[in-house]
Amino acid sequence: MLFGGAAAGLGAIAALGIESLTSTTAPAEAADQLHGNTVIPFYGPHQAGIATEPQAHATYISLALRENLDRAAVQRLLRLLTDDAARLTQGQAALADTEPELGAVPARLTVTFGFGPKLVELAGSSAAGIQPLPKFSIDRLQERWNDGDLLLHIASDDQLTVAHAQRMLLKDARRFASVKWVQPGFRRSRGSEASGTTMRNLFGQVDGTVNPSPQTADFNALVWNPDGSTTMVIRRIQMDVDTWDEVDRSGREFSVGRTLANGAPTTGSQEHDEPDFEATNALGFTVIPAHAHIRRARSENPSERIFRRGYNYDEQPTGTDISDSGLIFVSYQQSVAKQFVPLQQRLAELDALNQWTTPIGSAVFLIPPGCAEGGFVGETLFKA
Amino acid sequence: MLFGGAAAGLGAIAALGIESLTSTTAPAEAADQLHGNTVIPFYGPHQAGIATEPQAHATYISLALRENLDRAAVQRLLRLLTDDAARLTQGQAALADTEPELGAVPARLTVTFGFGPKLVELAGSSAAGIQPLPKFSIDRLQERWNDGDLLLHIASDDQLTVAHAQRMLLKDARRFASVKWVQPGFRRSRGSEASGTTMRNLFGQVDGTVNPSPQTADFNALVWNPDGSTTMVIRRIQMDVDTWDEVDRSGREFSVGRTLANGAPTTGSQEHDEPDFEATNALGFTVIPAHAHIRRARSENPSERIFRRGYNYDEQPTGTDISDSGLIFVSYQQSVAKQFVPLQQRLAELDALNQWTTPIGSAVFLIPPGCAEGGFVGETLFKA
Repeated sequence: MLFGGAAAGLGAIAALGIESLTSTTAPAEAADQLHGNTVIPFYGPHQAGIATEPQAHATYISLALRENLDRAAVQRLLRLLTDDAARLTQGQAALADTEPELGAVPARLTVTFGFGPKLVELAGSSAAGIQPLPKFSIDRLQERWNDGDLLLHIASDDQLTVAHAQRMLLKDARRFASVKWVQPGFRRSRGSEASGTTMRNLFGQVDGTVNPSPQTADFNALVWNPDGSTTMVIRRIQMDVDTWDEVDRSGREFSVGRTLANGAPTTGSQEHDEPDFEATNALGFTVIPAHAHIRRARSENPSERIFRRGYNYDEQPTGTDISDSGLIFVSYQQSVAKQFVPLQQRLAELDALNQWTTPIGSAVFLIPPGCAEGGFVGETLFKA
Repeated sequence: MLFGGAAAGLGAIAALGIESLTSTTAPAEAADQLHGNTVIPFYGPHQAGIATEPQAHATYISLALRENLDRAAVQRLLRLLTDDAARLTQGQAALADTEPELGAVPARLTVTFGFGPKLVELAGSSAAGIQPLPKFSIDRLQERWNDGDLLLHIASDDQLTVAHAQRMLLKDARRFASVKWVQPGFRRSRGSEASGTTMRNLFGQVDGTVNPSPQTADFNALVWNPDGSTTMVIRRIQMDVDTWDEVDRSGREFSVGRTLANGAPTTGSQEHDEPDFEATNALGFTVIPAHAHIRRARSENPSERIFRRGYNYDEQPTGTDISDSGLIFVSYQQSVAKQFVPLQQRLAELDALNQWTTPIGSAVFLIPPGCAEGGFVGETLFKA
């Protein structure tokens, strides 16, 4: 009966989709210019939402598993959430979806699952690769933004779709887990800029120019493990826009080594120009200073790179503050220890940007491989 | 020098806009399909952001004026904010804009100002039309969501643009006022559905079918005063999605009088069909029950209508909750007393939806007329 009901629901949704495009109140947009029906495949060797071109909206939800959950219960939870994600991402109603119409506009919805150490151990696998990060000198971590057992990363070009998927998943998860933290983030909306444009953060900087592209050959070796999994670092970086605003443009560009106008290195003119770290100015100093972010972020070892895919956050100010902004830093890499930690260690030691940025939350998750139809995300851990 | 700097800034922004469209990393979208450069005129007889087709994102900010501000100081504040709004909405840097690149993608940005009683009286005008609403039996108002002296309503199809405009305006306002409350809201993203599609709220309902259209003749008489002003009611309506989810589809449709699939009255098949309030079912009861929302919302007096333009809100859940959702109800009307109050009174007395909805915040603002270049929003009040 449950399955029959869901199938009938899907028929209604399909009809609704067609109707909304032909509505008499709708102006002349051609249906093929609308992006609400665009879907990202759910099943595959890797989970979607990582190599996927970033959507405009993302919410990261960290869940704490309830006490005394056994291996079988965790498996039931993962089957349930996998089924929800597989349906919702395709614009279909989840089983027992009480607001199916809200899910009829997927707009590239992806749902990506990450596992914390406790969940991995419950499954019977080793959590060696996803231990909490070493303490960095710059960290001012608040427990309320740290860690978690199960991460849900929900992203879409439509915020109403994210809200609906979030509620559906949490409804199914609540018997098994409670919410530890939720971090909603955003980038420019779909179609407001050309896709592929590097994002800007709330300091106004072009942020993420040097990033392996999912389209290039080195991406696989940097990000994916042979079994299709990866590891994720998520850090909440508070940005003090008030003190940043006291710095003039050249001071800002000096601290990063890139221009604000288009993100070009201060030794070049285009965003993707190679920085010239040897170039000197009339006084004999290097144009890109020793403490500049792009100099400190760079490693001589090309295998020490990470793949970044973060979002801006902007919470509502309280009291006399006028903003509470920052970056949800997210990176994916095969090895946290070999790729992320050396980079973060270097930046913690010296990076001009540290003056205005403070890490206030940190977590590491295993991102298990994708699954095939009939399977569930995380199944390979249980087989081990 | 300040103006010269701003002009130079604008040149840089214009160059940036062209560059971002011709970037080598950008795929094949034609520039004319991108919506980031679309602007809504700022100057005019009415403020923008009301008759404007609703943008995907809106933030409502209520400011409390500092003690002892005099008439001249309020005027300075309004001149400053008007100047910011006039520039930002056109994709130009505000004066002293420290992150000008973030404003280069207006995406239909509008900034609309509303005045609370204290500001109107400070200007030397009568605040008779914008007194707080009478207490309705359904109200459970929390002071932290009520009232305010100056409302900033910032809306755009791009959330990063809203964030930048919000910060710029609050930077200029903070010497004069502090933040009382901020309510961010959203609808479907631009282009995910055909524009003109009636919004859905987080109950999944088509919400706002019966609404005067800015394109029809009756709009002017319902909304605009002869001087170009209007009044705004903004109410925060908490929606208890958990208990709503316990009701089956026919129960939900019964309580509203419309279908969930497409918002058609339960006596019709298309969204904009006229409801048949006399139609009866096999048992002799009216198909649209006596307590149904659409029956209660309807007045026999066509001049008692309001123009609605609200947004969904979805705050992050805390503790054992899994959602904190609702509607930022916003209506515009010539007369709050003659148009809004009778309607709300009827709904407070009887409306099946009251079972799942609770007003937790309420405010009324005067929306002054628009202004011409060189003027400022609110100037007519000071002339009085």
